[in-house]
Amino acid sequence: MREMIPEPLTNEAFAPFGSVIEASVDAVKVDINQGHAVRYDALAQVDVADGGGVPVISLFRAKPLAELVLRTFERHPLGSQSFVPLSGRSYLVAVAPTGDFDASAIRLFRAEPNQGVHYCKGVWHHFLLVLEESDFLVIDRAGPGDNCEEVELEPRDQIRVRR
Amino acid sequence: MREMIPEPLTNEAFAPFGSVIEASVDAVKVDINQGHAVRYDALAQVDVADGGGVPVISLFRAKPLAELVLRTFERHPLGSQSFVPLSGRSYLVAVAPTGDFDASAIRLFRAEPNQGVHYCKGVWHHFLLVLEESDFLVIDRAGPGDNCEEVELEPRDQIRVRR
Repeated sequence: MREMIPEPLTNEAFAPFGSVIEASVDAVKVDINQGHAVRYDALAQVDVADGGGVPVISLFRAKPLAELVLRTFERHPLGSQSFVPLSGRSYLVAVAPTGDFDASAIRLFRAEPNQGVHYCKGVWHHFLLVLEESDFLVIDRAGPGDNCEEVELEPRDQIRVRR
Repeated sequence: MREMIPEPLTNEAFAPFGSVIEASVDAVKVDINQGHAVRYDALAQVDVADGGGVPVISLFRAKPLAELVLRTFERHPLGSQSFVPLSGRSYLVAVAPTGDFDASAIRLFRAEPNQGVHYCKGVWHHFLLVLEESDFLVIDRAGPGDNCEEVELEPRDQIRVRR
């Protein structure tokens, strides 16, 4: 087992895996609604059409791991997946690049309560890592086909999260 | 001008216009993530493919009307649109059925901080009606074509919201 400390979540650091969904100063901003709103436009592109998929909006109610150790990763080869926190709490995001799973390439981020994440299709990730019970809005794929692959980490590759 | 009092937002009352996005007891619930989350599945079906559209995730930062009077409605003939509050505040939702705009059919709802709304394609609605500055996650359509029509209410049809 090894240890990792979460790094701050930024769009730049997260770019190889997807995008951060937040009202960032770098976003494309458009004035709409007769001046009553600003649109931070297209912070994520939902990519779920492969194999006859359609986009759906769901809600996940997640609870923490009993022990903060990462033992399994998953990926969705047919569609992107976005998570946006609704409970005003920080959470963790663990990812690894697309392609053959490489435990040495795992990155661990700490997401702030105002930051969602969009995983590109095929990006390896741990399931929702909350620190307290929290709700998330989830935008992902419904449709035919097997859209979930899992890997189990070897004991030496398992990661204890240091906070 | 006439007055309307917002009614509570429920999935049943809102069904002619779309769906309510919330962790409702009536939702289809699936245990996932090795027992660490419940998925309230497919609370809304994103419907944006017409005319070559694709789904995108944006963020709206909305501010209140200076005067709480409804004067214009809009609809998006090419795609559905979903709004989920991120700021923990109630807001109002004003809608009218698809088809020719009928001011006498307007319905006004009060949404709780844990309720999002999904407007079906072509449903007439007022733009975001917040009571204090608030952020919303928005899932809608990007793509070619004219996807916004607006109507201006006759003075006698305008609506002053009573709270």
